[in-house]
Amino acid sequence: MRTSQFPLSTVKEIPADAEIASHQLMIRAGLIRKLAAGVYTWLPLGLRVLRKVEHIVREEMNKAGALEVLMPALQPAELWQETGRWEKYGPELARMKDRHERDFCLGPTHEEIITDLARNELRSYKQLPITYYQIQTKFRDEIRPRFGVMRSREFVMKDAYSFHLDQESLQATYDVMYQTYTNIFNRFGLKFRAVMADSGSIGGAVSHEFHVLAASGEDAIAFSDASDYAANIEKAEVRRPPLNRPAPSRNLEKTPTPGKKTIAEVCEFLGASASNVLKTLILVQRPADPQNSAARNVYYMVLLRGDHELNEIKLSKIIGNFDFAKDDEVEEALGCRPGYIGPVCQEHRPFLGRIIADYAVENMSDFVCGANEAGHHYTGVNWERDCSLMNEWLHDIRQIGEGDPSPDGNGNITIARGIEVGHIFQLGTKYSEAMNAAIVNEAGKNQIMVMGCYGIGISRVVAAAIEQGHDECGIIWPNELAPFQVAICPMNMYKSDRLVDTVEKVYRELTEAGIEVLLDDRKVRAGFMFSDMELIGIPHRIVIGDRGLDSGTVEYQGRTDRDSQEVPFSELVGFIKARLA
Amino acid sequence: MRTSQFPLSTVKEIPADAEIASHQLMIRAGLIRKLAAGVYTWLPLGLRVLRKVEHIVREEMNKAGALEVLMPALQPAELWQETGRWEKYGPELARMKDRHERDFCLGPTHEEIITDLARNELRSYKQLPITYYQIQTKFRDEIRPRFGVMRSREFVMKDAYSFHLDQESLQATYDVMYQTYTNIFNRFGLKFRAVMADSGSIGGAVSHEFHVLAASGEDAIAFSDASDYAANIEKAEVRRPPLNRPAPSRNLEKTPTPGKKTIAEVCEFLGASASNVLKTLILVQRPADPQNSAARNVYYMVLLRGDHELNEIKLSKIIGNFDFAKDDEVEEALGCRPGYIGPVCQEHRPFLGRIIADYAVENMSDFVCGANEAGHHYTGVNWERDCSLMNEWLHDIRQIGEGDPSPDGNGNITIARGIEVGHIFQLGTKYSEAMNAAIVNEAGKNQIMVMGCYGIGISRVVAAAIEQGHDECGIIWPNELAPFQVAICPMNMYKSDRLVDTVEKVYRELTEAGIEVLLDDRKVRAGFMFSDMELIGIPHRIVIGDRGLDSGTVEYQGRTDRDSQEVPFSELVGFIKARLA
Repeated sequence: MRTSQFPLSTVKEIPADAEIASHQLMIRAGLIRKLAAGVYTWLPLGLRVLRKVEHIVREEMNKAGALEVLMPALQPAELWQETGRWEKYGPELARMKDRHERDFCLGPTHEEIITDLARNELRSYKQLPITYYQIQTKFRDEIRPRFGVMRSREFVMKDAYSFHLDQESLQATYDVMYQTYTNIFNRFGLKFRAVMADSGSIGGAVSHEFHVLAASGEDAIAFSDASDYAANIEKAEVRRPPLNRPAPSRNLEKTPTPGKKTIAEVCEFLGASASNVLKTLILVQRPADPQNSAARNVYYMVLLRGDHELNEIKLSKIIGNFDFAKDDEVEEALGCRPGYIGPVCQEHRPFLGRIIADYAVENMSDFVCGANEAGHHYTGVNWERDCSLMNEWLHDIRQIGEGDPSPDGNGNITIARGIEVGHIFQLGTKYSEAMNAAIVNEAGKNQIMVMGCYGIGISRVVAAAIEQGHDECGIIWPNELAPFQVAICPMNMYKSDRLVDTVEKVYRELTEAGIEVLLDDRKVRAGFMFSDMELIGIPHRIVIGDRGLDSGTVEYQGRTDRDSQEVPFSELVGFIKARLA
Repeated sequence: MRTSQFPLSTVKEIPADAEIASHQLMIRAGLIRKLAAGVYTWLPLGLRVLRKVEHIVREEMNKAGALEVLMPALQPAELWQETGRWEKYGPELARMKDRHERDFCLGPTHEEIITDLARNELRSYKQLPITYYQIQTKFRDEIRPRFGVMRSREFVMKDAYSFHLDQESLQATYDVMYQTYTNIFNRFGLKFRAVMADSGSIGGAVSHEFHVLAASGEDAIAFSDASDYAANIEKAEVRRPPLNRPAPSRNLEKTPTPGKKTIAEVCEFLGASASNVLKTLILVQRPADPQNSAARNVYYMVLLRGDHELNEIKLSKIIGNFDFAKDDEVEEALGCRPGYIGPVCQEHRPFLGRIIADYAVENMSDFVCGANEAGHHYTGVNWERDCSLMNEWLHDIRQIGEGDPSPDGNGNITIARGIEVGHIFQLGTKYSEAMNAAIVNEAGKNQIMVMGCYGIGISRVVAAAIEQGHDECGIIWPNELAPFQVAICPMNMYKSDRLVDTVEKVYRELTEAGIEVLLDDRKVRAGFMFSDMELIGIPHRIVIGDRGLDSGTVEYQGRTDRDSQEVPFSELVGFIKARLA
């Protein structure tokens, strides 16, 4: 392709509403244009990338034996009412009425539609297992669409749904899909992790998210440096360490710590390390009906090592929903204002419902904690000698951290940020039960089918790839997703016949070798070309100038190379092919 | 592919709401399933066909230098308000409000969106001409969706839009698109005609429709048997024949024709041919404000040869909108009830505004017409001698008919029915003017761009292909659109090892030769397989049985062949390839 036939739409200005790199670069490189909030047109250059993502996904889904279908965007309310989601889904579901005042939505997902199809098409266990997928445009009426195509209102998804006789068959397909997703993300050429995840509102038990790693990612992922273990940090389990508490060596002392309320302040003031300071949090569950005078607040004292963070999701699974207590509530619960509280002699306080302690505090000794008196901390605190620590208080309630042992016992944890672009779920019978999607089993009886579902945000992959691959000059595409693999930049305003002949020959040879080449045949200065090609992220650049004509070489430079190198014309095709392999 | 991995979804029952063959067959063959009125899911088999249509269209559009984009389905009302179509489009425009109560529609077409894109992206005449296209899902809230995907509410279209500095450039691109469409329809393997057409509500002057010919088509097309001439029958011009009127040979006589009101009745009663009877129609234009007592009806007497049909569109272009006069209005205009009226001595009647005669009546002599007296006709009528015929009365107002000379002077007209699946328009500046889509021209001045637009109903092509190609057993696909090109049907329930080995070898060889094969590996009776393969319309069928194993042959039968033929294993690939070429 030539820029004369495939005009670039690069722009200099960074759009005011573009907060993240991928959004800015997708506009600047001319991949997308905004039509309305969260609604984008894909320009030719962007569409080439989108199609590559689609193509890889389609090939791998086909390889996995999934059957491609195309379901409508328009979905009748009746089916969503069958599963109760018409009411539950909330304002993100884009709803409309047709001219006959019938309710429809624009599908954000297709569980209801595929389950309806399956209950009509599938009759016998002999037809199972079966997996359908589609690559299709979806709608979600985001309250605040942002980050370009990363969180838009109209987007392209690959969604797949599998149907099974039993859980065992679901697990087998789920494993195939896990592998298929791994293959897909490997083919994208992106650094990614498959992480164990909560399945959120879609329901079901087992689920994995596929995250493209990027510093700007919304999610933090904990993964092992020695195994496949990876989990959303919200979900990553921290296993109970073996009991290994040093014997007490210091006496309990009440030490003045005037105005030192935070862990950091106390550490600095006392010369202690955060791992040796006890973090004490007071949480509250307020009565549902505050008018009922008999109802009282219930307080929780939560104990963590000073260098650990509370994982609120883990804690809420133990005690239910909670709030952090306000200052006067802390005082009601413990008789002391916050900043100086601790567990010593507090367990029998009125109103204090329960103490919850993270496993890690069990191994602390000679530690520091609040003395329940303003401006004072205890030092040299030891469990049992100075303060109770009941086994039933101990739970996994902290966020896993960098360097923690991996929960699977292999290696240590590294924390990275990721962008969720894929998600596989074991749905079980949530939808098939609600919609009575049954088949006749081997015994001749009706049996509700078991389901899985498997999504990839096709348009999101494009943005995520840019979040992972960019620098101050522009996008850095992996070979597999680049809109063009090679850019040819002719020097001297593409004017001399001798140059044109050579450039055309190189262009022809590379193209005939099946390489996707963008020949910049604009009669513009080299610097202008280079900055455009860097901005749009072409992985391989070939510069052809008069000097090269004499020496029979081109100047090659990879998008992330520091320097260019000379490559003889005769070796060029092989050279590029090697770099694309 | 094997039926075990690609299950067929054929059904016996003809769905109650399926009125036409393609709708019935698409359901029965398992290509689509209805989700709601006019909203369909494409099953795997149907989607394969849809993708083939898409693929051919995409390849040819790319060859023509058009740039593929992907515009959103969600379109903000503001842009439609700029062109006035938000108000004009009517209830077929699917409208909705987002959660912030902003108005959107689901695009049935994208003129506003592309014109908005163009006015932002295109600055200089140097960027012109440029053609963008997309293959995208569209919505039209049909009042009565029917005929399956032929007239549905959600459908796939290829729409393209070109931008130009001037009409000359538009014409050049229009010509390229005309040729591109011709190439596309040829590649589909369908019988089609490009016909001159009215451009309807989209506006603009020159337009052509591309019709797939089928007896069930909604539109009648007139085309020459000796040239490329083709036009929608509504539009086909009938040229004025040379004056060639025989001299009068009979006297004017008033003849009783009691109760004989229609042309057919009069012909039978008088032994006349319809071409020698004058058809006289009375039309009326009623005053806009019927309360205004000064306003009166204006009547038109319209004269046609008895065997010709009025073309109302042609007439309305001459006199504007009109109605057929009611009986009492005819009497007011002519003093005679309908059935016996004629032009003799009527031209100066009060209230009779104007006489309009079709060119063909000019050559009538000794003809029959109503005598303006109940129960009587004149015979032996001759123009000038008995009745005026002014040159200014004469116009082309009739429908062209089978056997008429072609308007381009080459050959005679044949009438066929067609299904409109493509349409190319010269839009001119209708949208660019309304939306101020201008570029800077060579003189440095702002200039409104000239536009063309070019559509193909991708999903409609699938249905149209079936309307053209089917018989009582099912669909007959052309090679290029067939979901699979070859079906292999093994005999004897696919059980003997010897048979399986051979079948697998044939399957492998054909597949490796790049042929798309569906191997029916279901253990079912031959008749069951055959009827499925005929229903889904696979063009080439290979039967392999024990007898063939002995003789080293397969039984080949084309979908429309009367008989099968034996083909040696060794020649099979070449044999099939020749049939696909």
